[in-house]
Amino acid sequence: MKGLPSVDRAVGVFSRFPGIGKKSAQRMIYHLLRHGVDDVEQLLVSLQALRDRVKYCEVCHNLAEGDLCWVCEDAKRDSSLLCVLEEPSDLMAFEKAGFFNGVYHVLGGRLNPLDEVGPEQLNMVSLKKRLLSGQVKELVIATNPTVEGEATAHFLAQLASSSGCKVTRLAYGLPMGGELEYLDESTLYQALSGRREF
Amino acid sequence: MKGLPSVDRAVGVFSRFPGIGKKSAQRMIYHLLRHGVDDVEQLLVSLQALRDRVKYCEVCHNLAEGDLCWVCEDAKRDSSLLCVLEEPSDLMAFEKAGFFNGVYHVLGGRLNPLDEVGPEQLNMVSLKKRLLSGQVKELVIATNPTVEGEATAHFLAQLASSSGCKVTRLAYGLPMGGELEYLDESTLYQALSGRREF
Repeated sequence: MKGLPSVDRAVGVFSRFPGIGKKSAQRMIYHLLRHGVDDVEQLLVSLQALRDRVKYCEVCHNLAEGDLCWVCEDAKRDSSLLCVLEEPSDLMAFEKAGFFNGVYHVLGGRLNPLDEVGPEQLNMVSLKKRLLSGQVKELVIATNPTVEGEATAHFLAQLASSSGCKVTRLAYGLPMGGELEYLDESTLYQALSGRREF
Repeated sequence: MKGLPSVDRAVGVFSRFPGIGKKSAQRMIYHLLRHGVDDVEQLLVSLQALRDRVKYCEVCHNLAEGDLCWVCEDAKRDSSLLCVLEEPSDLMAFEKAGFFNGVYHVLGGRLNPLDEVGPEQLNMVSLKKRLLSGQVKELVIATNPTVEGEATAHFLAQLASSSGCKVTRLAYGLPMGGELEYLDESTLYQALSGRREF
């Protein structure tokens, strides 16, 4: 099959997104071509803005457009409560929920020896510095409940042990709205062993 | 919830793609930001190429990078067999299958009075001209089997009637690999009434 090189190349680039296969990428490109120059132009402008404006917060490594992100800039946030996360998208999940009034530290990933991600590849030095500053009273570990996330959690707990601050971990248990019948064994085990008085 | 304006804007632009909701758009943008400048740069280059290079074929209105598309440029195609389609993506479906050796005419949509798409909004004048040139022996109508596609097919049949060429329509019937049990009634009706000797 022949076709246009520029269309094929764009399909290739778009199908690299997670969850976007070749078929979806094709549909997206044809949609763009059908809707003409305006849509392409808006995409270009928005991508250029991403490239040129988005940086990382100097304090917590969240995405930021200035030196500090909107959380670190906010004087009303409780800087004695520090929540450490893997990615900016995890932070956004917390911010979207809106009940957390502390501050964050974004690691930029998780420990993964197979992918050669050690503590040096993550934002650990700046975390250690924040913990040693004496401002943090509680460190909430909010890495993902995966094998790598758990390993990272253990590493973080050890890192924080010398700083004297309280170290906590998000609770494991039943996800709201889920059904016991479909729950995996290890979650059920966690929910049982972490049961609380009613 | 606060966030970065440039991220929100990019999410908004991406979620306008068909089949891409806000959640998927967010995942795409975070993927881009995580994979850094290179990926954004490649997207920008591919989109700029789309914008600057892709035009429409002067003869058949397929996507093209020059004046003519690769089909109209190909002297080996049978220009007496003309297949009329709604969109370039429909043409690509034919080209991918690879068994059609005729040429195409892309309407650029379908008749749809509700959306104010009449014959003037489609590439009808150039089709009429091609039919009147005497080169075309058979016009294969390959609009989609939807209400609007059918209306367009009838309009095309009428348009072609004065030119003296043979007018055909793609067959309706059972899709290969489908199961009778799950087929809608009108397809089943078409399959029965269009039955052929075994």
